[in-house]
Amino acid sequence: LETAESGRKSNKKAFASEVAEIRNGLLHAQDDLAETDIPVLILIDGDDFVGGEALFDRLHEWLDARFLRSTAYARATPEEEQRPFMWRFWLEMPPRGRIGVFQRSWHSVTWADRISGRIDDQELDRRIEHVRSTEQGLCDDGALIVKLWLHLPKKELKKRVDAARKDETWRYHETDSFVYKHYAEGVAIAKRIVGGTGLMAAPWTVIDTGDSRQCWLTAARKIAHVLRERLDTPRYAGRPGQDPTPEADAEADEASTPREDSPDVQVSVLDGVDLGARLERAVYRRSLDELQAELSDLQREAWRLDLPSVFVFEGWDAAGKGGAIRRMTHAMRATKYKVFPISAPDDRELSRHWLWRFWRRLPKPGHVSIFDRSWYGRVLVERVQGFATSEEWKRAYAEIEDFEAQLVESGTVLRKFWIHIDAEEQQRRFEDRQRVSFKRHKLTAEDWRNRERWHDYEVAAADMVEKTSGVVPWTLVAGNDKRHARIEVLKTVCEALRESVRK
Amino acid sequence: LETAESGRKSNKKAFASEVAEIRNGLLHAQDDLAETDIPVLILIDGDDFVGGEALFDRLHEWLDARFLRSTAYARATPEEEQRPFMWRFWLEMPPRGRIGVFQRSWHSVTWADRISGRIDDQELDRRIEHVRSTEQGLCDDGALIVKLWLHLPKKELKKRVDAARKDETWRYHETDSFVYKHYAEGVAIAKRIVGGTGLMAAPWTVIDTGDSRQCWLTAARKIAHVLRERLDTPRYAGRPGQDPTPEADAEADEASTPREDSPDVQVSVLDGVDLGARLERAVYRRSLDELQAELSDLQREAWRLDLPSVFVFEGWDAAGKGGAIRRMTHAMRATKYKVFPISAPDDRELSRHWLWRFWRRLPKPGHVSIFDRSWYGRVLVERVQGFATSEEWKRAYAEIEDFEAQLVESGTVLRKFWIHIDAEEQQRRFEDRQRVSFKRHKLTAEDWRNRERWHDYEVAAADMVEKTSGVVPWTLVAGNDKRHARIEVLKTVCEALRESVRK
Repeated sequence: LETAESGRKSNKKAFASEVAEIRNGLLHAQDDLAETDIPVLILIDGDDFVGGEALFDRLHEWLDARFLRSTAYARATPEEEQRPFMWRFWLEMPPRGRIGVFQRSWHSVTWADRISGRIDDQELDRRIEHVRSTEQGLCDDGALIVKLWLHLPKKELKKRVDAARKDETWRYHETDSFVYKHYAEGVAIAKRIVGGTGLMAAPWTVIDTGDSRQCWLTAARKIAHVLRERLDTPRYAGRPGQDPTPEADAEADEASTPREDSPDVQVSVLDGVDLGARLERAVYRRSLDELQAELSDLQREAWRLDLPSVFVFEGWDAAGKGGAIRRMTHAMRATKYKVFPISAPDDRELSRHWLWRFWRRLPKPGHVSIFDRSWYGRVLVERVQGFATSEEWKRAYAEIEDFEAQLVESGTVLRKFWIHIDAEEQQRRFEDRQRVSFKRHKLTAEDWRNRERWHDYEVAAADMVEKTSGVVPWTLVAGNDKRHARIEVLKTVCEALRESVRK
Repeated sequence: LETAESGRKSNKKAFASEVAEIRNGLLHAQDDLAETDIPVLILIDGDDFVGGEALFDRLHEWLDARFLRSTAYARATPEEEQRPFMWRFWLEMPPRGRIGVFQRSWHSVTWADRISGRIDDQELDRRIEHVRSTEQGLCDDGALIVKLWLHLPKKELKKRVDAARKDETWRYHETDSFVYKHYAEGVAIAKRIVGGTGLMAAPWTVIDTGDSRQCWLTAARKIAHVLRERLDTPRYAGRPGQDPTPEADAEADEASTPREDSPDVQVSVLDGVDLGARLERAVYRRSLDELQAELSDLQREAWRLDLPSVFVFEGWDAAGKGGAIRRMTHAMRATKYKVFPISAPDDRELSRHWLWRFWRRLPKPGHVSIFDRSWYGRVLVERVQGFATSEEWKRAYAEIEDFEAQLVESGTVLRKFWIHIDAEEQQRRFEDRQRVSFKRHKLTAEDWRNRERWHDYEVAAADMVEKTSGVVPWTLVAGNDKRHARIEVLKTVCEALRESVRK
């Protein structure tokens, strides 16, 4: 950090002449960017909050503000604190072809939280881990992240604190004197953050803010340079907006055939489900009543305690996900839960990292989000049908584990159900749907197509269960008997809530 | 209400046989709906909350849940209370071709707020007024609103309260006994709401919930019937998804020519702006410093008081809106304001009522939303260029006034600026933009096109100022001198905040 303390001073004239050139560079890059599929994140972080705001202002003037999305973050509100740390940042991710400016991103917020003692070293390390994997995930997805750490040397900071005391009160941030008082500690924490999150794909630029104009120029130059560099790579240069489909298609083919290291014998994890499990109607009725009554109480209690929960339903077409979900929601207050049926992403969702649409649907404190299909589509239908390249879906296991770890660490109750049926049972249900007029709409050509890929889905599901049971294990539910499946789901949901409520 | 107390009892058999038929009707209607531009709102309101939740469940089973959006509302949270009443409902408006179910909409919430004494009769009447105009606006926009008021007769309610006391505790709502205790009052308020909001375009159906099955059938029949009726009107029948463009085009022509009753002499309201106003650089510097310092303090104070504010900027292309906005934001904390550059609506926005995108951008308590162009586009560019039919933009004046009234009544500080320049000054600025490379991006072919319609815009702007000054008057700012304009804007902003902060 100290090496960035340049102490260079600029003069007005040189500044004005250089600004024109840089503005042109930025505007052209921004123009070209619009034709690509690259989302750009500019993070304005550091120990100099006042300098950060000035740079933020300046970028709005220098870039074309019509195509700029920017958000400034402060300390989390009490409600935000009950969400996973990265949640409110995910909401503002820029779409492809656009620049998003984060004024005090996850880095500065973490820095401020640590220096003020709101989090300890352990939490600091945990955050650094999640930030690393989030940024890596964004870069893997094609994002360009420009990370600027604005650092004000102690001497300059003292000058500003002194000046502020005298007159220019409104420009004065209480933070300045706080930072001054804890200067050494601040530098130590900054080093830890900057050092811990310096990814190859998204390195830091540390900038001395002692001279504002120099700071703005350095930041703008850096942004223009990095943008231009990416735009000039063979993939984008001269082929604006070109669709990278051919490549994806080639990989898709690979994806749809079972991997060599997954012979049939590995499907055992699903084979272990006892599909003979049955429940008598009378027993079912009684259990249903009891469990719904308990669930109702538990949900009220979770609401009182501000506990959010997430329940994920995956399984074969016609496995009975919808019915199981309705038996759950029947016992819950309609204002407190939301069911999200997940199908193909829409345009807005496609233009962002694939996890974005799930971050947006996380529950408020005390609420329940139920996913009828979920982020696991990435390693199921998207893998099998080739909508994701093999690189993408293979990467997804780790992304999912990190995503779920963030949920659980923030206190969210999370359970995942795979409702299992065999091919014969599915056939029976498809035929039933075809016979009953008001069930016919549930059966689409896609269902028959999926059925033809039964084996591929089997391999994908088994891989999924194996590779994503680290944070929260899957609950495999025997679904040939609907009554049995519904009761199993209710039991697990109640258990999970009971456990968390009593903590 | 009492006439709805049918006391009819159904039997299981007749029920099952009728359900199949109704489900088919609903599913077909939902299918056909998807091909149209009709957004459908189903409001499940009434004094029977338990019955409402049961119906809500049932509709999810009977309709195709994949294409259903539904939200359940309870009493507003403290943060929601600081927004305009209709805000959280606007967020969930269904797009065209889809059904949105509102479990306890604005009606039930108002009913519950009144019966529990959280609002008085005056506020009740005010809400009824806003609800009327909101629903009317949605219907004008092509929406279909099915309003169901679920009413449980006193005798049945007593039975349920008694039964709940004994065993079925989890199904028991505290509300039931409260409603029972205040039964007469509840009926009186219900009559007032149902009576006051029974629009021709969106009438009420009052349903006796004494027999759940009858209630579900009646509701489902009503929904299927109303949907089918609309789908069978000549506009939609047999022409699924057809674009109503030709008609719109015809009206657009009319829109672009100045109305006969607006001869040039009516432009006077803008002519009254003294474009000769100038400010010396030294005076400007001093005023700017003073006003920014004051604004900074005021904004902090407004933040402390949870006061939200909205500032709207309209004016000719190159009038200097962006510069004026930057002089404001420079004095504000970046976390507390958001600038929204408004251009053409995107697909998601187009598929909803035109005001939806502005409701979504209203500020949180203590925050500031700045609109660089705004909802006034409806009566400016959309009128002049024919993007809105003459019917649509003429209706918009009243819609805007009602929208702004809701903002102001909820305690939002609102000011609207029209920054005025003359055609010669605009010409100079366009030429300047063309000369300076990094300003060139601001000048588009559209700007030149708009300039050719100068007279039409003049008429539209004058009409706008005249017809939308009822709730909050416009601040007309002389913009030929940028310094003068910026100071005028800052002064007005400070005045507005000072006034509200000191209240």
